[in-house]
Amino acid sequence: MSGERVDVLRLGYRRGRDPRITTHLALVGRAFGADRFLLAGDEDQDMFDNLKSVEERFGKGLECEYIKSPMGWLRKFVEEDAGDGLPGVAVHLTMYGEPFREAIPKIRRDRPLVVIVGGAKVPPDVFKLSQYNVAVGNQPHSEVAALGLFLDSWHGGNTLDRKFEDARLIIEPSAKGKKVIDLDR
Amino acid sequence: MSGERVDVLRLGYRRGRDPRITTHLALVGRAFGADRFLLAGDEDQDMFDNLKSVEERFGKGLECEYIKSPMGWLRKFVEEDAGDGLPGVAVHLTMYGEPFREAIPKIRRDRPLVVIVGGAKVPPDVFKLSQYNVAVGNQPHSEVAALGLFLDSWHGGNTLDRKFEDARLIIEPSAKGKKVIDLDR
Repeated sequence: MSGERVDVLRLGYRRGRDPRITTHLALVGRAFGADRFLLAGDEDQDMFDNLKSVEERFGKGLECEYIKSPMGWLRKFVEEDAGDGLPGVAVHLTMYGEPFREAIPKIRRDRPLVVIVGGAKVPPDVFKLSQYNVAVGNQPHSEVAALGLFLDSWHGGNTLDRKFEDARLIIEPSAKGKKVIDLDR
Repeated sequence: MSGERVDVLRLGYRRGRDPRITTHLALVGRAFGADRFLLAGDEDQDMFDNLKSVEERFGKGLECEYIKSPMGWLRKFVEEDAGDGLPGVAVHLTMYGEPFREAIPKIRRDRPLVVIVGGAKVPPDVFKLSQYNVAVGNQPHSEVAALGLFLDSWHGGNTLDRKFEDARLIIEPSAKGKKVIDLDR
């Protein structure tokens, strides 16, 4: 796990309806090697606080940020400046896209990447602005699973060794039961 | 994608809190090669109707069933009879388990498999009765992503070609936009 920055951009968040799914998305981003989680739609400080408390226990690795104008942000990202003055790469996850395992080898790795996860209604510009529209299967299932499979594959299956800074709780793999190391005890 | 039957068992479902996550779990099961989705905890006919409507549009492949006594069901499954008079194999997905990519090659493939997805509080017997406690990473993320990665890996990445019977809607992979074939039109 290394290389250019990876962002996850969640579009169209609805505070009343989506907090659990969207928390899962952010945590999947964190576990599978994303550096930033960008939320568009409704603001939700409670969800960000919840994510921060996970990072306080299990270690820091994911920045969270609210994006007020995601389409303007995306246009700038892919056409002008992904943060360092040069354009980045946008991958839109959609059940209508091309197979992710065929797409991934085509995607350049020397630029920052944003993985876009839509909501119920995705603006057509997302399909146009993204250099890649990528499907994890063409059946309805879950953006949470799609993000996990895409990121795992993008990082060659190596994300699960990711180290997080200042972790207080560390889980040791175990065939039976639970082994948790609490560094504060 | 072939071989013995694969079940997904969702424990501890709470009707008021979990319907979206649990619908995602069932759809991930369907998309990634499970044959049955077994729900324990609260009953929820609305959720089953919702899953049935997906199958009416995208094709049939997943049976849904409510299990009133999941621990008794599991004990019988692993100790006596997985449906054909012989014991089956239970894999419990948990963030405390051993790495899934190391565990999968050890798991016998000539018996029916049940993949168990817990809720907030998993009875200790689930850890004991399951022959395998398997983690998709030892960080908190999402049972939905964990199920997707486990099943995808179990089926060697071939689930995404799964064919569904009597599908009315078929999505054609596309690099830009949406291509949907509606056989009723």
